[in-house]
Amino acid sequence: MASRPKWEAIAAAKRRALADQIPAEYRIPLHLVPPDTQLDVTPFPRQSGWFTQRELDITESSAVQIVTKTAATTWSSEEVTRAFCKRAAAAQQLTNCLSEILFDEAIQTAKSLDEHLRKTGTPIGPLHGLPVSLKDNFNIVGKDSTVGFTSLVNDPATSHSTLVELLEKLGAVRYCKTNVPTAMMIAESVNNVFGRTVNPLNRRLTSGGSSGGESALIAFGGSPLGVGTDIGGSLRIPAACTGIFTLRPSFGRFTTQRCRSGLSGQEAVMSVNGPMAKTLEDIVLFSKTIVDSQPWLLDAKCLPIPWRVVEHRPKLKIALLWNDGMVIPTPPVVRALKETVAKLKTAGHDIVKWDPVLHPKITDLLGRMFVADGGKSVEALLALTGEPIRPEMISYEQANELGTHAMWQLHSERSELQKQYLDQWMAMDGLDAILAPTTPFASVENGGFKHVGYTGVYNVVDYSAVSFPCGVIVDRNKDLDTPNYEPLSNLCREIHSDYKADLVHGMPVSLQLIARRLEEEKVLAMTETILQAIHPSGLISL
Amino acid sequence: MASRPKWEAIAAAKRRALADQIPAEYRIPLHLVPPDTQLDVTPFPRQSGWFTQRELDITESSAVQIVTKTAATTWSSEEVTRAFCKRAAAAQQLTNCLSEILFDEAIQTAKSLDEHLRKTGTPIGPLHGLPVSLKDNFNIVGKDSTVGFTSLVNDPATSHSTLVELLEKLGAVRYCKTNVPTAMMIAESVNNVFGRTVNPLNRRLTSGGSSGGESALIAFGGSPLGVGTDIGGSLRIPAACTGIFTLRPSFGRFTTQRCRSGLSGQEAVMSVNGPMAKTLEDIVLFSKTIVDSQPWLLDAKCLPIPWRVVEHRPKLKIALLWNDGMVIPTPPVVRALKETVAKLKTAGHDIVKWDPVLHPKITDLLGRMFVADGGKSVEALLALTGEPIRPEMISYEQANELGTHAMWQLHSERSELQKQYLDQWMAMDGLDAILAPTTPFASVENGGFKHVGYTGVYNVVDYSAVSFPCGVIVDRNKDLDTPNYEPLSNLCREIHSDYKADLVHGMPVSLQLIARRLEEEKVLAMTETILQAIHPSGLISL
Repeated sequence: MASRPKWEAIAAAKRRALADQIPAEYRIPLHLVPPDTQLDVTPFPRQSGWFTQRELDITESSAVQIVTKTAATTWSSEEVTRAFCKRAAAAQQLTNCLSEILFDEAIQTAKSLDEHLRKTGTPIGPLHGLPVSLKDNFNIVGKDSTVGFTSLVNDPATSHSTLVELLEKLGAVRYCKTNVPTAMMIAESVNNVFGRTVNPLNRRLTSGGSSGGESALIAFGGSPLGVGTDIGGSLRIPAACTGIFTLRPSFGRFTTQRCRSGLSGQEAVMSVNGPMAKTLEDIVLFSKTIVDSQPWLLDAKCLPIPWRVVEHRPKLKIALLWNDGMVIPTPPVVRALKETVAKLKTAGHDIVKWDPVLHPKITDLLGRMFVADGGKSVEALLALTGEPIRPEMISYEQANELGTHAMWQLHSERSELQKQYLDQWMAMDGLDAILAPTTPFASVENGGFKHVGYTGVYNVVDYSAVSFPCGVIVDRNKDLDTPNYEPLSNLCREIHSDYKADLVHGMPVSLQLIARRLEEEKVLAMTETILQAIHPSGLISL
Repeated sequence: MASRPKWEAIAAAKRRALADQIPAEYRIPLHLVPPDTQLDVTPFPRQSGWFTQRELDITESSAVQIVTKTAATTWSSEEVTRAFCKRAAAAQQLTNCLSEILFDEAIQTAKSLDEHLRKTGTPIGPLHGLPVSLKDNFNIVGKDSTVGFTSLVNDPATSHSTLVELLEKLGAVRYCKTNVPTAMMIAESVNNVFGRTVNPLNRRLTSGGSSGGESALIAFGGSPLGVGTDIGGSLRIPAACTGIFTLRPSFGRFTTQRCRSGLSGQEAVMSVNGPMAKTLEDIVLFSKTIVDSQPWLLDAKCLPIPWRVVEHRPKLKIALLWNDGMVIPTPPVVRALKETVAKLKTAGHDIVKWDPVLHPKITDLLGRMFVADGGKSVEALLALTGEPIRPEMISYEQANELGTHAMWQLHSERSELQKQYLDQWMAMDGLDAILAPTTPFASVENGGFKHVGYTGVYNVVDYSAVSFPCGVIVDRNKDLDTPNYEPLSNLCREIHSDYKADLVHGMPVSLQLIARRLEEEKVLAMTETILQAIHPSGLISL
């Protein structure tokens, strides 16, 4: 121990402590553990025989189904919680997706929820008995929120994040926190404390980041609903890499108060949080429930905008972002766009084109805003334990700090771009939404994620966006290459030269639907309309 | 000329050009000009005989009355505009309140409005034919927005502020811009271009700042409705100094897009704009009209919150801020609080006490946020012409620039204080509003304004606030001193030692009613309820 650098010892101890928190009955029997060569571990729960039918029924239900059954006492909160603890434990052992384990407390909470329902005959709230997983940066009293820094190990939170308090009041059961990249500023989930989370659909691939512990856990079935955060794509990228749903709300709808940040006090672009789940209706359940609880009475930054009823309109005017002027999407994503457009046209929607003229400028600005402190926030947290900076974060090490005066000029530059983006939107008379790739990839090999431009633009303009699986699955025969490919940039060339259809064969492809700022209700309703066009037979969830 | 510093020559030429823009027929005949020793010039329009009865009727009408009469063609837009141009010209000659004069364009606009109404039978919008004065920082194509810097003279705007475009569409007539202090960062309206605006109620006193050109103009009757801005009290202080009404909205209700700022890109505390007028119903007219025009479709920073109907409630729970823990208000303001509380209790309202525990911390933070760029923004604008910094802005000269990392820590400090302020509010079960002094003063001698703490706190927490004249008039006999005065600070002692009842005798005293963030409709409705308690006979406007 003494010969290892301090940070390595801290990390090793933390990983051991985490492993020790998995109770014996939730450790996968050795003879059932899939070999490392098994890339897709999502069939494990059904195929291993290690789960009871009831555990499978519970953990393969949607959040909406679960709260219906817990409220009706068809299922007890306790059995629901135990089933998800077991499946989350399996997810951890197969994908390394967790950062904190709270199974004991969760089962106690569930028991008291059952008791409450038994005594009063009414559920505690609309999320009664629903296990909800949380990204590592949500503070829970007594638990670490390391956000991937060894210096933050054994620095337990002294107060809950406001969302944690709110979820508790609504009846949700917290039972684990999930892994993130260092400072949550990498598009994959890898750090020097917990190491790397991998994609349960293909463990050679990333589950994305920074909410990639969540996406791996949910895609494996270890959580019915999780909460992640997004400052440059951190909800949407991992959702897309694993084929689940998410909503990136505009800032001010859901509370971010008292969460840990990797860039504390940075406000040029605001981090938001949002739900991740396997069905759109679960995303709606979370969103409506949180807004209905009036978070603006608890969080001074939340906006007093109640949940609004939106009329479903049969004909939408949708602008297609075929590429962002920097990187042409890889072949499966191009095919997903084309096939989706064909279905939308068949369903009668009006499809126009979005000119990406502002996207390179906005993406460049986003990068400069993230490192405006010269990486000091990150360096300070690394220095405490002598932890090295990760190679993915080299831009933080290389950056020079801006003075406040120069930072103010960035704000002005950003405000002008926000204005131009809105003007471009309004000039497209009656435009409802932009349909875009969520990322240029279905997913990528671990360590290979290279471009967050498709998501980051919407953080800068703060628009509401849903990432959803569009039904297209990568096919090594159909998605070999991009016809008439002409690179838009060196990065574009590099990404296309890295692309291998074989590697991502079988992965789901996601797209992103974008509405204007603070149109969360509308973007969710429009996503439903689009899913109906994609799956006219009616089956819209995974 | 050559012997004068460059900035002085620029300023002199600009002042001359402004004076030349007053047409001969609007120059007060020499024999009618009140002597400098006449402090209260508000009786001038009625007493001088220089105004026709119809000009007086028009310029002494409220905005609501004016738009009713222009829409009904009782008055033409042209005669309304000409009357206000004349009275604004008089205001300028007696109080030095204007920065730009647009009388010719205004009369052309008014004529075309009349023509439109004649032809179509319908007014162009809800503000049809209403002259609206604008603070100097609103950009109008072809006009300067110097915000008091000689370096910005002869630098005409190339695009309108969004609010200017909006007001035009709504039928308003722009006819002048009004004076401000340098960079709009002094609580009086004095700068090296135009010099000092004085209070028409008493020219030894300040009309406040930074929207003190507006307040002087409106109090004199030279504008029925003006638009000012507020980042530390710049709407409320001048409104209070002149006994008129204003609403400081939370950020995002009214558009601030493409206005000139003295601290461009500064966002730790956001500047807002709002209406100033002689009646509360005029404040409501502007506010509802602007929000109804959906500014969020034009300005990416505006919030899509429609104008909300608020129920008037007969019983309010109001917390009194007797002092802010830094400065005890001067005697007339203390008396205004006491008399108002007595009337509110008589009317059945529930009066509790607001503990100012957070006010000194928030006020201190606000000061640090303003100078976080080390005064570079201001210095850069001064350096271009060798203009000296004004003594009131010495803190900008003395400040050291913060790095972005340190600035981010200020953001975190501010967010925590915002949370604590909201928590304190929510802990006072069912609290509707805080009633507070707007400033410690009725007004002060020119050059004597010393404390913006009462207003600045609500910029930091971004609450909605109305400043209103409470009906109390300073009385040199009643308001001699503060019983049992014990200073809260050196500043408090200085302010009370400066105070002279004789000097402010006869001045109206204003108070501030504060609701939570984004409760503009509610704070306006509650102000009406309070005015009813103050004036049970029914006369509520000046």
